[in-house]
Amino acid sequence: MNAEILAVGTELLMGQIVNTNAQYISDKLNSIGINVYFHSVVGDNPKRLEESIKLALERSDLVVMTGGLGPTKDDITKEIASLVLKKKLVLHEDSYKRLKDFFSNLNREMTENNVKQAYLPVDGIVIPNNKGTAPGCIIEEKGKVTVILPGPPYEMRPMFDEVVLPYLQEKSNFKIVSKYIRTFWIGESKLEAILMDLIDNQDRVTIATYAKSGEVTIRLTCKSKTIDEGLKEIKPFEDEIIKRLGDSVYSTENEELEEVVAKLLIDNNLTISIAESCTGGLISSKLTSVSGISHVFDRGIISYSNNSKIENLGVDQSTINKYGAVSRQTAIEMADGIRKTSGCHFGLSVTGIAGPEGGSDQKPVGLVYLALSHDKETICKELNLFGDRERIRNAAVLHAFDLIRRQIGGIVIG
Amino acid sequence: MNAEILAVGTELLMGQIVNTNAQYISDKLNSIGINVYFHSVVGDNPKRLEESIKLALERSDLVVMTGGLGPTKDDITKEIASLVLKKKLVLHEDSYKRLKDFFSNLNREMTENNVKQAYLPVDGIVIPNNKGTAPGCIIEEKGKVTVILPGPPYEMRPMFDEVVLPYLQEKSNFKIVSKYIRTFWIGESKLEAILMDLIDNQDRVTIATYAKSGEVTIRLTCKSKTIDEGLKEIKPFEDEIIKRLGDSVYSTENEELEEVVAKLLIDNNLTISIAESCTGGLISSKLTSVSGISHVFDRGIISYSNNSKIENLGVDQSTINKYGAVSRQTAIEMADGIRKTSGCHFGLSVTGIAGPEGGSDQKPVGLVYLALSHDKETICKELNLFGDRERIRNAAVLHAFDLIRRQIGGIVIG
Repeated sequence: MNAEILAVGTELLMGQIVNTNAQYISDKLNSIGINVYFHSVVGDNPKRLEESIKLALERSDLVVMTGGLGPTKDDITKEIASLVLKKKLVLHEDSYKRLKDFFSNLNREMTENNVKQAYLPVDGIVIPNNKGTAPGCIIEEKGKVTVILPGPPYEMRPMFDEVVLPYLQEKSNFKIVSKYIRTFWIGESKLEAILMDLIDNQDRVTIATYAKSGEVTIRLTCKSKTIDEGLKEIKPFEDEIIKRLGDSVYSTENEELEEVVAKLLIDNNLTISIAESCTGGLISSKLTSVSGISHVFDRGIISYSNNSKIENLGVDQSTINKYGAVSRQTAIEMADGIRKTSGCHFGLSVTGIAGPEGGSDQKPVGLVYLALSHDKETICKELNLFGDRERIRNAAVLHAFDLIRRQIGGIVIG
Repeated sequence: MNAEILAVGTELLMGQIVNTNAQYISDKLNSIGINVYFHSVVGDNPKRLEESIKLALERSDLVVMTGGLGPTKDDITKEIASLVLKKKLVLHEDSYKRLKDFFSNLNREMTENNVKQAYLPVDGIVIPNNKGTAPGCIIEEKGKVTVILPGPPYEMRPMFDEVVLPYLQEKSNFKIVSKYIRTFWIGESKLEAILMDLIDNQDRVTIATYAKSGEVTIRLTCKSKTIDEGLKEIKPFEDEIIKRLGDSVYSTENEELEEVVAKLLIDNNLTISIAESCTGGLISSKLTSVSGISHVFDRGIISYSNNSKIENLGVDQSTINKYGAVSRQTAIEMADGIRKTSGCHFGLSVTGIAGPEGGSDQKPVGLVYLALSHDKETICKELNLFGDRERIRNAAVLHAFDLIRRQIGGIVIG
């Protein structure tokens, strides 16, 4: 079974929003052995939408449509899909009732244009929307499956997970099993050179690499009858690649760096506090995005001003005067200071120049110091990052997590 | 001139990455009066890629391709495009030299597979890549323009901005002018009911609304000969909409809420410090993403533990004992505390339960208190948010910025 994801919405073509739905649905479809061959996006234009639906139904067995189910006049997905599929739209009583309840629960008035959201293609399987006003549906016709879902990800995701995915799983008779090996700070072409012979000789287990801001992920994929069989086929390749890449590998479970770090801390009951300057809270906010982190994360200090570095972290005024706020010495005092005042096992600090302003010849934009304090030692790392403010901040965050991972890994293992 | 953006990459179809390039390019093309009618994504499959390029060239005047220019074997964009366009790939000497320089500057070895990146379609306009290894190109053939760019956004964006955009601008003889009115915390259908008559009678100035997590943006668009003429046509509609929506409108310049807040603070020289609990640094990290914020942002305290609330913010132990860490009283003491210790004009605090753990009957997941302290008064707002951890944290951030905006706006005006 091969699939196409067709998003509808002029706001996507205007560049106002990003099509994250396509990513979400693709990931899920692949996980149950459905190949996604195409993503398409088309605007709220009846003729082009009609053509796009027709094309999708020609070249794909499954068409998942998102967006254009709102109450407004430019929401035309159901109308055009029902035209192409020759399925009349009829009022769905249960959806109409849910719609009325939705508004009364919110203490909001239901406006008249909302009613059209309860009209659905006849004979379809209706997918209730627990988070919003637009129900979705599944229509099966001549061996092709069309799924219609609302655009807002928060509404779409549970509808997809709870109704569409189980429905499709029933139809699939094999699995695509993938393992992801994630690495940090190794170039994609260098990595591929290291793995060249494996890539050249790939057969049932395919090997693909892709890069994203300092990270390269290696995907190993195998089609098999069961997940266990697939994993067994992948295992020798996985082991060999991990052996070759050594400690550049930070996850074999497709986790983000912050998840790996959070897990290391939580599993080993190691507490941490974080002092940030140029990253402005980004490290702490990423780390605290992981549920359960409150057991080990004590506090974060975003010491933007020198006063804060002195008052909250105990950095010496003379250190700042002598070496500057962006210096190895200040980074070390920040890390030591937050560790001691918080009483944690680890204190992490970062100070740097994210730009675009604030750089100089001696200390250019992109200069960042990271320090990690532990009662045995405090290590400090100088980074020379490039790019704009956002990129420098994000790279500093990744390097900070990588530093913690390597250090704690060493302490836990050593 | 109408355009299609065709992204190439199995990693997009596997759901490993999101197609942010399509959003970026669409926004830019629209700004110079080029209508984007389609986005497509296809994998690293020669046959389907060939079909997709042919279809795009049939239905669109301009085809912008991204991705598949890497050094690896599954990077086939140039190869297939040159096949369809009947333009041989030849070694581009200057690109080859740049490639060698790129690696020597990084002190990295250039592996042999990188050389293929210097092969480009004959007669094309070569687009140098200052951030990575893959140059792009523009090919004009039979009135159709094909643009080929690398996939990593950080490489693609400057290449698009510096070469492709000026090249296309030359060809366009009118402008599409858009104004965006951004609102917070007003439902899309309620908003559309308020604007119904304007939407029904739209003519040369089109009105579209779209919603995103608590925000609704209204886009007013007009096609005209010059930007000034377009803005003039849009003005009466803009004024009328702003009048009807009142203080729900937070920007008419298409800014994010944090940008509006940062500007208000910087322009009025009002300093702020922020104490966060459940948002874990997200408010500070968003605010500090705005360049120049260091003039007014003094510090942030992420007081995850009660100790930190007491030590860094001066919250009374008895307040926490009596009312709990998530309470109106604690929020107020946090905000007052950070304002006083930092000596800023404003102290903002947030404390709440982001979930999934930590909720109770009295204090369910989603309960959040925001407080804003000023020497005249401290205001506190209780929020009952719903959704998962990410959604609750993000909503709390938006509400925090909205609170600051309204309060500072009032103080500045009042």
